[in-house]
Amino acid sequence: MTIINDRLLKALRLEPVDRPPVWLMRQAGRYLPEYLQVRAEAGSFMDLCRNAELASEVAMQPLRRYPLDASILFSDILTIPDAMGLGLQFVSGEGPVFERPVKTLRDIEKLPSPDVHDELGYVMDVVRAMRVKIGQDLPIIGFSGSPWTLACYMLEGQGTRDFATARSWLWRAPQALQQLLDKLVITVTDYLAAQAEAGVDVLMLFDTWGGLLSEAHYRKFSLQPMANIIAQLKSRHGCSLPVILFSKGCHTQIDEMLKSGCAGLGVDWRISIDAALRQAGGRVAVQGNLDPTALLAEPAAIRQIATEQFAAAVSQPGFIFNLGHGIMPQVPPDNVSCLLDTVHALSARQ
Amino acid sequence: MTIINDRLLKALRLEPVDRPPVWLMRQAGRYLPEYLQVRAEAGSFMDLCRNAELASEVAMQPLRRYPLDASILFSDILTIPDAMGLGLQFVSGEGPVFERPVKTLRDIEKLPSPDVHDELGYVMDVVRAMRVKIGQDLPIIGFSGSPWTLACYMLEGQGTRDFATARSWLWRAPQALQQLLDKLVITVTDYLAAQAEAGVDVLMLFDTWGGLLSEAHYRKFSLQPMANIIAQLKSRHGCSLPVILFSKGCHTQIDEMLKSGCAGLGVDWRISIDAALRQAGGRVAVQGNLDPTALLAEPAAIRQIATEQFAAAVSQPGFIFNLGHGIMPQVPPDNVSCLLDTVHALSARQ
Repeated sequence: MTIINDRLLKALRLEPVDRPPVWLMRQAGRYLPEYLQVRAEAGSFMDLCRNAELASEVAMQPLRRYPLDASILFSDILTIPDAMGLGLQFVSGEGPVFERPVKTLRDIEKLPSPDVHDELGYVMDVVRAMRVKIGQDLPIIGFSGSPWTLACYMLEGQGTRDFATARSWLWRAPQALQQLLDKLVITVTDYLAAQAEAGVDVLMLFDTWGGLLSEAHYRKFSLQPMANIIAQLKSRHGCSLPVILFSKGCHTQIDEMLKSGCAGLGVDWRISIDAALRQAGGRVAVQGNLDPTALLAEPAAIRQIATEQFAAAVSQPGFIFNLGHGIMPQVPPDNVSCLLDTVHALSARQ
Repeated sequence: MTIINDRLLKALRLEPVDRPPVWLMRQAGRYLPEYLQVRAEAGSFMDLCRNAELASEVAMQPLRRYPLDASILFSDILTIPDAMGLGLQFVSGEGPVFERPVKTLRDIEKLPSPDVHDELGYVMDVVRAMRVKIGQDLPIIGFSGSPWTLACYMLEGQGTRDFATARSWLWRAPQALQQLLDKLVITVTDYLAAQAEAGVDVLMLFDTWGGLLSEAHYRKFSLQPMANIIAQLKSRHGCSLPVILFSKGCHTQIDEMLKSGCAGLGVDWRISIDAALRQAGGRVAVQGNLDPTALLAEPAAIRQIATEQFAAAVSQPGFIFNLGHGIMPQVPPDNVSCLLDTVHALSARQ
């Protein structure tokens, strides 16, 4: 079955599109009052992620409001460590916390490799429930945290500003860290393959904390594991879905990322979109990269920012309009309308 | 009067040195038990900063333990907003918080331009007390937060992971933000000039949050105000002390930084030291950049890391050995000894 709105898929194949595809990271989320209502009904955040009916409902909410060219699985990047037994909790105002973080080499050796169909079957249920609701109208993006980013939270136990404990493993125990990453490569690969089987059309790796690393460490401990996942998706699972690789704060490494086998690169706002497209050189798609804090401006300013962004990128093959990071909870939903209306009006004028 | 150990001053003039100067950001701080003892006696952290006897004592502590080539003023980067009336507090476990953050354009317009001799005289008292204790043995580095970094805390009210509220001013109210930065340029300039008069030998601008900005915003809202400060130190105050500019996470902008009039650039660990030196091209000194989490490794690993870092940089003019960010509180003091002993042993072999 083919997807009716295939702009995102075409852009990822670097094929011509009538206009650039548009979606927004965290398009389903706390800035939407209808999300907050479902969230309140669901219990904890993980209860919501585990409830296919409610999770697929919140994934649909932005599609009803806005003209978007893709949906994205509603889940969390930390489902895998949770399935490995670390005990994921969301503490109000503090974000994710693991009850049993990884503290020793022994903890790494003991980590189980979960059967993703058993332990993470609830995620595939969300994908299937989304497909029922979306039909063939739009592509669904599946995702996982990258091995390095998962390791950051697993070793630190929670989100911190600099993940100093996690980073100390780079120096204290690089082989143990590599062992952890190798385990994560296997499970992330299985997990993404299972999402593909369940019906997603595109895969994305969120490498939120790649930018904490030196360039040499990024290549070894963040990029290489992601490249391994992309290779193994094909070789072990026969899965050839396009993969978007989003390493936040790593735009100096675009040339290296091009060797990973990805179909698209997500970039944050710290590089200009035209510079990113130029570096990608038409070899992969480029997704991004409006500063999400721009959505806190007045409509006139949002229109101007979107116009500049769009003008700089629209003529390039493989441009996917997005933010440089997720929508923030305090963004007024009308500002998102303003942004998307502007982008669509510009597209119509092309 | 000349400074006896003038390695840092020579490196900043790109003159030959018998060995690279070595100092460490946050060399006086919570990792030292003798610091914690004084800190406990002093009352609050700001009480310590305001007590010239105790602040100069903690600045001396690392010099007694380690063979260091510079001392640095013991103070906080946020003294200026405090002097502007924002009410700086240090909340245990949360870092700096302002009681009265800047919320509106009116708040910016009302901000006083403090007389730095009156309102920040306690900082100059610390400088003078340090000079009495140090004599002419070592240079003293004075410092301030950069205007952009000060603005981040003033607009956000406290440290957060992404300073989203502060960044939203880039889009919501760029002219008001510029007005705030212009005010800060004046006070930072006066403040650094007063530190120079009180006896510091080198000045440093800590731009901790420059890396949150797009490249264009960095140049306009972070780098340009720092360049203005460097120009006005000379033109308005006749102060020609060397200035080290440390914009964390901004190494893609080294070429632009070279135009700022700085004598040295601090770099974090995300660029290799040889790449940073190569880009600086012998036009300014380069200070950095060992990942501070490396100090959590075993001595053997620390020796290896320091050796690699040193080998990559030692032959370049203007290399100043340092960390890429401040020493973390959990670092064992013996690991700092191990690092410095290694560097000195390598120097002796040159």
